[in-house]
Amino acid sequence: MKPVKIKIKPIGFVKTDASEEQVKSRKTISEIILNKKLSKALDGIEDFSHLFVIFSLHKISEDEKRTLKVHPRGRLDMPLLGIFATRTPFRPNPIGLTLVKLLKRKGNVLKVKGLDAINGTPVLDIKPFDYWDTVKKIRVPEWRKKLEEERKRENRKLS
Amino acid sequence: MKPVKIKIKPIGFVKTDASEEQVKSRKTISEIILNKKLSKALDGIEDFSHLFVIFSLHKISEDEKRTLKVHPRGRLDMPLLGIFATRTPFRPNPIGLTLVKLLKRKGNVLKVKGLDAINGTPVLDIKPFDYWDTVKKIRVPEWRKKLEEERKRENRKLS
Repeated sequence: MKPVKIKIKPIGFVKTDASEEQVKSRKTISEIILNKKLSKALDGIEDFSHLFVIFSLHKISEDEKRTLKVHPRGRLDMPLLGIFATRTPFRPNPIGLTLVKLLKRKGNVLKVKGLDAINGTPVLDIKPFDYWDTVKKIRVPEWRKKLEEERKRENRKLS
Repeated sequence: MKPVKIKIKPIGFVKTDASEEQVKSRKTISEIILNKKLSKALDGIEDFSHLFVIFSLHKISEDEKRTLKVHPRGRLDMPLLGIFATRTPFRPNPIGLTLVKLLKRKGNVLKVKGLDAINGTPVLDIKPFDYWDTVKKIRVPEWRKKLEEERKRENRKLS
């Protein structure tokens, strides 16, 4: 095990007018503006309905990267968990991963729905969502079920 | 849009006896050996059935990184596609993403099933598979359907 450093260069950036709060809703429509030299690398992507976007959580500080435990969503009524058991942005390598719906591709621009990344976020990779990425039955912890039930209740109230 | 370089440091490594061909089957059982200093960051992960593993495709050369188009699986009977419309390891940022089944956690070691990464692969991040990561109905291109049907026929032959 020799520690190596891996250099990564963005392939493009996120463009959105939505605020930090709004992008969290996963209903936001945003654009991914790819480096024009990479336009051709998108050919054929239109035929997929969903994509994984891998991006840099570029606002995370060196201190935040050293976090080992968090309460999900910062809520003290939730258990204290290892960061790898959560999707917190506080991670040794602050890499974001979000499944989005592809609405449109035009040249080097992808219009997507559901990307929880703020304006200017560096994008590192884009992958089509494939058969391999689905699981029929998943098991999640009790705290996660509770958060999901709360979200559903909230949505029912709003509709 | 200012190009920035992002430095990434592995959080651990993949340990497996399986060959490069064998790991592709997605039936292989492998271990992720985390940096011991990060052990605590796994606390609570046992309650998830599935994880995303983000890793470095560290054998990809500088030339391969510059690939823009490929035939899926190198098959000339498949269309020539942009690399972002495929899961080829030839990508500007050679980052791998695989959904695995978590079999066991012991200290800093995760035993997982389905990781298509070779022995010694640097692991960059681990995320629990969550409700947000599921899609009820996906649309994929014709070429992808064809590959999936071939795989199923092959599996039927073997069983």
